[in-house]
Amino acid sequence: MAYTAPLQDMQFVLKELAGLEQLATLPGCEEATPDVADAILEEAGKFAAGVLEPINRLGDCEGAQWSDKVVTLPAEFRTAYRQFVDNGWNAFDHSPEFGGQGLPRLVSAAVREMWKSANHSFALCPMLTGGAIEALELCGSQALKEKYLPKMVSGEWTGTMNITESQAGSDLAAIRSRAEPQADGSYRVFGQKIFITHGEHDMAGNIIHLVLARTPTAPAGVKGLSLFVVPKFLVNDDGSLGARNDAWCVSIEHKLGIHASPTCVMSFGDHGGGIGELVGQENEGLKYMFIMMNSARYAVGLEGLGLAEAAYQKARDYAKERVQSRAIEGSAASVAIIQHPDIRRMLMLMKSQTEAMRALAYVVAAAHDAAFHHPDAEERKRNLAFVDLMIPVVKGWLTETGNQIAYLGVQVHGGMGFIEETGAAQFMRDARITTIYEGTTGIQANDLIGRKIAREGGATLKIVIAMMRATQAELAAVSDADCQAIAAALATGIDAVVQAGDHIVGLYGANVREVAVGAVPFLRLMGIVSGGWMMARAALVAQLKVGAGETASFYPNKRKTARFFAEHVLNEAPGLVREITVGGASALALEEDAF
Amino acid sequence: MAYTAPLQDMQFVLKELAGLEQLATLPGCEEATPDVADAILEEAGKFAAGVLEPINRLGDCEGAQWSDKVVTLPAEFRTAYRQFVDNGWNAFDHSPEFGGQGLPRLVSAAVREMWKSANHSFALCPMLTGGAIEALELCGSQALKEKYLPKMVSGEWTGTMNITESQAGSDLAAIRSRAEPQADGSYRVFGQKIFITHGEHDMAGNIIHLVLARTPTAPAGVKGLSLFVVPKFLVNDDGSLGARNDAWCVSIEHKLGIHASPTCVMSFGDHGGGIGELVGQENEGLKYMFIMMNSARYAVGLEGLGLAEAAYQKARDYAKERVQSRAIEGSAASVAIIQHPDIRRMLMLMKSQTEAMRALAYVVAAAHDAAFHHPDAEERKRNLAFVDLMIPVVKGWLTETGNQIAYLGVQVHGGMGFIEETGAAQFMRDARITTIYEGTTGIQANDLIGRKIAREGGATLKIVIAMMRATQAELAAVSDADCQAIAAALATGIDAVVQAGDHIVGLYGANVREVAVGAVPFLRLMGIVSGGWMMARAALVAQLKVGAGETASFYPNKRKTARFFAEHVLNEAPGLVREITVGGASALALEEDAF
Repeated sequence: MAYTAPLQDMQFVLKELAGLEQLATLPGCEEATPDVADAILEEAGKFAAGVLEPINRLGDCEGAQWSDKVVTLPAEFRTAYRQFVDNGWNAFDHSPEFGGQGLPRLVSAAVREMWKSANHSFALCPMLTGGAIEALELCGSQALKEKYLPKMVSGEWTGTMNITESQAGSDLAAIRSRAEPQADGSYRVFGQKIFITHGEHDMAGNIIHLVLARTPTAPAGVKGLSLFVVPKFLVNDDGSLGARNDAWCVSIEHKLGIHASPTCVMSFGDHGGGIGELVGQENEGLKYMFIMMNSARYAVGLEGLGLAEAAYQKARDYAKERVQSRAIEGSAASVAIIQHPDIRRMLMLMKSQTEAMRALAYVVAAAHDAAFHHPDAEERKRNLAFVDLMIPVVKGWLTETGNQIAYLGVQVHGGMGFIEETGAAQFMRDARITTIYEGTTGIQANDLIGRKIAREGGATLKIVIAMMRATQAELAAVSDADCQAIAAALATGIDAVVQAGDHIVGLYGANVREVAVGAVPFLRLMGIVSGGWMMARAALVAQLKVGAGETASFYPNKRKTARFFAEHVLNEAPGLVREITVGGASALALEEDAF
Repeated sequence: MAYTAPLQDMQFVLKELAGLEQLATLPGCEEATPDVADAILEEAGKFAAGVLEPINRLGDCEGAQWSDKVVTLPAEFRTAYRQFVDNGWNAFDHSPEFGGQGLPRLVSAAVREMWKSANHSFALCPMLTGGAIEALELCGSQALKEKYLPKMVSGEWTGTMNITESQAGSDLAAIRSRAEPQADGSYRVFGQKIFITHGEHDMAGNIIHLVLARTPTAPAGVKGLSLFVVPKFLVNDDGSLGARNDAWCVSIEHKLGIHASPTCVMSFGDHGGGIGELVGQENEGLKYMFIMMNSARYAVGLEGLGLAEAAYQKARDYAKERVQSRAIEGSAASVAIIQHPDIRRMLMLMKSQTEAMRALAYVVAAAHDAAFHHPDAEERKRNLAFVDLMIPVVKGWLTETGNQIAYLGVQVHGGMGFIEETGAAQFMRDARITTIYEGTTGIQANDLIGRKIAREGGATLKIVIAMMRATQAELAAVSDADCQAIAAALATGIDAVVQAGDHIVGLYGANVREVAVGAVPFLRLMGIVSGGWMMARAALVAQLKVGAGETASFYPNKRKTARFFAEHVLNEAPGLVREITVGGASALALEEDAF
């Protein structure tokens, strides 16, 4: 099997670290009992391994084809998407009000990780649809929702987000697309958008574009952006499809990876204007974008995790099977390369970081569920603050680490890793976009140090640090060599976060430029220490289980993996805090013309 | 200009750090005066920028084409290769005895860096020819040399190295190709070789294959390997080409990068046997391989440097030109992205590490020249020991860092970096092979800790550490804030190398497996501390120049760049030494079936 869903680790994290059982007691989450979650994960694993993964390389090779404004995906993708919709996978985590199964984010995270492992290009389509569903659900009128959501939730129609323009990559203030109000209350949308994922394709009957544009009376900058629904085919009152709308894909990009996910240049209004409907209020588009942004960024973080898991599995299988060279102490015959210490180190880096990322991602998903479903307002607020702080970490750390892991996956394969048929290089190519789209790592890091930390004087960060310290103290009290080593490394890591956090809060107002030099190193520090915290929690659980007579090797192995993480990843913390606290000025010392 | 040879930094390193002037006093190096070197570098820069770079992307897109055992390169590559040979570039650093200009390695390093920056695929062909020339020169009979070398030195014929077989990647003991002696003293070679760079192409009149194979009486393992010359076309006594030999390219690989460098499966002996001549003595093939290996590994290290420089230049140009978003403190208008602190940090990482790598690489090249040309035997020995120690560092550190820099180059471009037309992604794809071929980073690191350090009880390492400490002490005595900061970071780095080196020497015999877990982290530690040492030497020179009234901004900028390197790269040293000294056991703690 080229990919097998890591059910055991997923279930461990869901139940032992992310509190699935408690979550299922919250209003609206009652369906997500451990039994139901187990069953869904098992089915999802079969679908990912049996339907999505087998067409992953084919999608890479054939790619999306553009001809005369029509984008064609490989036939196998159309078939798989049909199965995906028929089996209810598009709907499983969307609102029951519009036909969804309403499963919480925590379960959704595990399922979506599988899709991303199995077929990143394919998974992007429902991911974008999900973003559009969320936007309409949170911001649209009841009429808009009823018109579009049932078929988007089922997956019969897909959705897109039309934000970027060529002169406005990460800078939404520079958006120029415009929307002219019509006598009937609709709008005519004009403008060209770039980098539109699945902006045009042949897997679904209709494509619902959400488009950021300006009305004639809008103020300049980000305060003048409004959000519009512009469907590919107009939708009649009875729900049937009407005329082709003036929204066309004029080209697709030739990209490093995700070849089966068409990245479109979309042109609106070349033939009289794309007919659109306003979502919510005029000039509130940015606010709506921000509401959705957390979900989108979280979802991209999961891509980093999914690709890491997939790269790990492929490298592990190769390392077990490939026999080459004697053992380092000498051996009669050649050995499988997994026996070679550096291969083992690389596999452990891949495995331990993937597990740490999974734990952090799912715990954040559970906090998201609590932030929206907990009956207690204080609990909702506390969980939301945690989620807000961690979103840039999940997006930035998981994707950067996902890239590193895909890189190691190629390395484990040696020369075969450089051959495209092997598949290891595809993970590396596909992963490369994840640190860029939905906000680059630099943008995540600025969000983390600015909006999420400095703006509130580090209040939420302090609460998280206290939680980390509690875990650390608990682990330090266990008289086991692994636990002691993990606790010691975690203590050093937490101290580094404290020191770096104080530096950021203290200097942000006086010299934001110097502080911002350390933003990405701080994001990495937060990632590895948060990951180390999760692995420490996992080691504690393992310790309890072993103490209670549990014999499954999973638990002592988890503890050993946590120790590896402490000694090979957390060890970076002192170097990072030094870079953050002293390195600001030297990064800015050269004049521009010295480059 | 898409690429401009960094002449100022190259000349600085050649003259101020690598001792070009002193080198030109050595017997056999007299031609390499600073004036001659300047002139050659300038012409080489024009050739790289004007001829090789303009066809780099075309080569990536069109690639090498295979049809019925014939490999066709883009016509532009054939034209460029003709110019390359006609202008004497293939011959410039080869032996005057066979028509070369005989320039030393130091000058050669700078010129070859340019080719690798401008066109990695193209540069591989003369690199392999150079390896084959060296093998024949060092190990072949006078008759063999006279038969092959003049046309290989001119570049009229190219060369290849046929080592790897599908069951024997890095494991030469597993090689099965065989050579049957014939009555006339020649051999018939049979076997299939994979991953043969430029094994077949249409840029040159003949291709001279060097092939590792076993004679019928050879012992098993690496002690039974012999080296043979098997030309594509047999060569008549008068030097004219004879019959097509039984050496055929049966397929080429579909690779992640270096698309215009055909990676061939070569089949010898499908039609009666490839006619070959023995190089040197039977069963001495491995020894000959080792002689060449240092050069080949060094040359691949230069690829890491060349790609880093190219990726830096492209990212820098984009960052200066791309205007997006306001300055972080606020600004009236949008600014060029080079103004954004994280972009600046990434460019500084690219620039400072590229400069540190260049300094180390050229200093090692100069030591190579001294090791072979110095009149004093002790000096030759001392320099050779330094080169031997540093070769795995140059190969491993420069290629791993080259990959990281190419990755950052994509990141600086944002979404445009993921679009193939931009060219940033090609550097990342092309660079990916450099940590694999000519021995993976893991193999370099094992060579470093084993053959180069533990086997001699760390003797050479101690000498190098003493040299580093001398630089550090000199810098610490300078009362300049930059110099003080660099000296402090370098002191920490050197201490880390000492501690890690002691650990390696002390434990190697008792537990080589645990020590080897830290091999790659130690290689990185040696790389960053050696690079920091070079940047410290550069800062000292800059300090002297500024003190002497030199007004060029190059010198203070070099000092600032060195400080950035100290605070953003050398800061990793404490984390690495911790990983090396405590992380061995945890990497080996899991059983194989726990993966």
